[in-house]
Amino acid sequence: MERTIDSSTICAVSTPPGRGGIAVVRLSGPAAIGIAQAIWKGKPLESVATHTVHLGTLHHDGAVIDRAVATVFRGPGSFTGEDVVELSVHGSTYIQSQVVEALCLAGARVAEPGEFTRRAFTNGRLDLAQAEAVADIIAASSRSAHRLAVSQLNGVFSRTINDMRERLLRLASLLELELDFSEEDVAFADRTQLTSLTDEVLTAVETLADSFRSGCALRNGIPVAIVGEPNAGKSSLLNALLRRDRAIVSDIPGTTRDTIEETADIGPYTFRFIDTAGLRDTSDPIERFGIDRAIDGASSADIILWLIPADASPTLTEEIRSRLRQVVQPHATLLTIRSKSDLAATPTADMEISTRLPATIDTLRQSLVNIAAEIVGGADDEGPVVSNARHHSALTAAAAALRRVQTGLTDGTYTDLVAQDLRHALHHLATITGAITPPDLLQSIFSTFCIGK
Amino acid sequence: MERTIDSSTICAVSTPPGRGGIAVVRLSGPAAIGIAQAIWKGKPLESVATHTVHLGTLHHDGAVIDRAVATVFRGPGSFTGEDVVELSVHGSTYIQSQVVEALCLAGARVAEPGEFTRRAFTNGRLDLAQAEAVADIIAASSRSAHRLAVSQLNGVFSRTINDMRERLLRLASLLELELDFSEEDVAFADRTQLTSLTDEVLTAVETLADSFRSGCALRNGIPVAIVGEPNAGKSSLLNALLRRDRAIVSDIPGTTRDTIEETADIGPYTFRFIDTAGLRDTSDPIERFGIDRAIDGASSADIILWLIPADASPTLTEEIRSRLRQVVQPHATLLTIRSKSDLAATPTADMEISTRLPATIDTLRQSLVNIAAEIVGGADDEGPVVSNARHHSALTAAAAALRRVQTGLTDGTYTDLVAQDLRHALHHLATITGAITPPDLLQSIFSTFCIGK
Repeated sequence: MERTIDSSTICAVSTPPGRGGIAVVRLSGPAAIGIAQAIWKGKPLESVATHTVHLGTLHHDGAVIDRAVATVFRGPGSFTGEDVVELSVHGSTYIQSQVVEALCLAGARVAEPGEFTRRAFTNGRLDLAQAEAVADIIAASSRSAHRLAVSQLNGVFSRTINDMRERLLRLASLLELELDFSEEDVAFADRTQLTSLTDEVLTAVETLADSFRSGCALRNGIPVAIVGEPNAGKSSLLNALLRRDRAIVSDIPGTTRDTIEETADIGPYTFRFIDTAGLRDTSDPIERFGIDRAIDGASSADIILWLIPADASPTLTEEIRSRLRQVVQPHATLLTIRSKSDLAATPTADMEISTRLPATIDTLRQSLVNIAAEIVGGADDEGPVVSNARHHSALTAAAAALRRVQTGLTDGTYTDLVAQDLRHALHHLATITGAITPPDLLQSIFSTFCIGK
Repeated sequence: MERTIDSSTICAVSTPPGRGGIAVVRLSGPAAIGIAQAIWKGKPLESVATHTVHLGTLHHDGAVIDRAVATVFRGPGSFTGEDVVELSVHGSTYIQSQVVEALCLAGARVAEPGEFTRRAFTNGRLDLAQAEAVADIIAASSRSAHRLAVSQLNGVFSRTINDMRERLLRLASLLELELDFSEEDVAFADRTQLTSLTDEVLTAVETLADSFRSGCALRNGIPVAIVGEPNAGKSSLLNALLRRDRAIVSDIPGTTRDTIEETADIGPYTFRFIDTAGLRDTSDPIERFGIDRAIDGASSADIILWLIPADASPTLTEEIRSRLRQVVQPHATLLTIRSKSDLAATPTADMEISTRLPATIDTLRQSLVNIAAEIVGGADDEGPVVSNARHHSALTAAAAALRRVQTGLTDGTYTDLVAQDLRHALHHLATITGAITPPDLLQSIFSTFCIGK
């Protein structure tokens, strides 16, 4: 564990950048209370109880910066585990910069991005997956992404990983025992028991790794591409699904030239709708560029809404449909929809809609929720889900190592080689919660945080 | 006094809009603690001491919104004078909106702009001038503007107004005494004493009203126009004064076509520099538009830096200089500066500069500070200064009324007419601190505040 101790005291504005009613400047470190006191007039902060707030004034350069409310949190019962002081001031940008300047003059230094959370990790207040969840929580802009991050911060995910590690450690100690007596060339441990333990953990690791698709769907929204020939009513459908005017709608075929992405919550799920340019044979280079993007959109979507206007020519439809079928992912759901169904009818489809008939849109919304439920499975419940690419690749690597263990246990590989594979699996799992932190891992994780967190 | 009681409990995000490490949602009103408790799991907030912070979770719609730190301030010892709860959460926009939604569902309503400060005024925690200072503090982006607002919030300005009002009330009671005995046709009060009291207060009111120019200079920065013929080096000078590259500089005469404004602190003063298009006779309509703007800039400036390049033709210079002299304000300072003084010399000027010689720029900066000291006078010390147009017009109206009182006392006007003028003067002073609030005044003041303050 590379948890180095940094004895400096850091400070930063923790509230969003810009002007507002109030702003909060946070200080953390062994000298936090003393440094805050150096610019403070009011009740001496050294003498106050933890978790109390006090009214006073902040001073810099011989003048009052502002009246402030100081909250004192004494370590280890603080977010970072160190002494923390939060100074709540009027939210002018001038005051914010003055407070940071005064604190730095008094001995603090400006925090790096994510440094408060990094210290919480270093001091054992959060494991690495929980620290990453802090950044996810702040970035979450939809219900699903938010719930996923909250559950990860609460440690549901970390407990699952730790449980897997514990079971593998039991396995490892059995193998090590065997190694200690290897001179005697006796297989000590019951190989059947070892194999079944490995199988169990491997299944758990694989299941968790497989939840990555659901996790991405929850985190980023389930991608839904709206495709169809020009003037099929794709943009009207997007607006109807979003219940607001996002895309420009006109009767002119080809109004939408680039793809438009928009996220919306429907029922318990977050969808990422991708409105695309109309598909048709064309020699216009800009339009062809738009069509390529539409095909791209369809190829990355989990759900494709294929709009066929009531007045469409069935031939063209069949031709482009086959082109689409070639690019959509095997697990994707393709839903054909007869649009403008208030007009005269022709082709058959899975569903009929008209943006003039709200009930038809409600039916479509319900269908989307049903499909989403299948995609996400039980992943939106409290169970652990992977939504972080780093965790997914660590799980994939752990699964590969466990598969080698599985083979090794049955095909007579030397026990020390099996034990090495097992150590690899353990290593990969340990990187997820940060029990092991390879060089530069912390830097690469925390540098993506915002300042002040 | 129109201080109506509103029994609702209000809530709003008080930190700047957008995403950040943390955000603070503020609740104020008689039910603040109960409403916070309705979405809270943790130590019961009803039972905690005032000015204490508590860790818990916030809930909405059957799910955890976030872990939060709740700070409880019991009225009347809070900012608004009511019970206040501040909920500090992770700064995602999703969490912020969810917390406000949950609080509204539990019985709060979303605060109007400035409504927290308005309640502080209604509950007598701040007078109106102090409440206006809260908005000024948040808007202040320079040292001078900031100090001015801090001093107004601290009540220096309000105390001066209240002192004037008290002296006028004494005067009024003496006059009323005379009115009570008016049937007996005896001038009770010593008219000399009354006149000298009036003179004293009138002088104080006029001095304060006259500080408006200084106040504006402190609040908005002292306007400094940089003018001169094309390619005189105006933009280079702006950049040198700002110590960064703000304006595009080239050897092509006429590079700056529109005026550029930029604020900078030099010494204890804030300057608002206005770089202008080069002045010359031209038929190009765009260039003429720029020149009109330059003349406008010069006409509103307190300091005009008139740049004459070392290689300039003296004739043209004298011609445009006389044009400039016609538009500059009588109190403005016109400083002629021989620019590019590292080149060959010709015309004489107040000062020589070269952006290639930093010492010459330092000398100019010092000159600006000296001129600023004269403009601002002692207004940057702790003394009261008017910087608010509403206060200035109230003071001007009070001064006019007092001048009528002064005349009335000496030219034998009926005492009841003099007393009426005196009441007018008192009324105008009372509107400044909000002891009297004419209809719609509060609405017009607080509607300019940001939400959450």
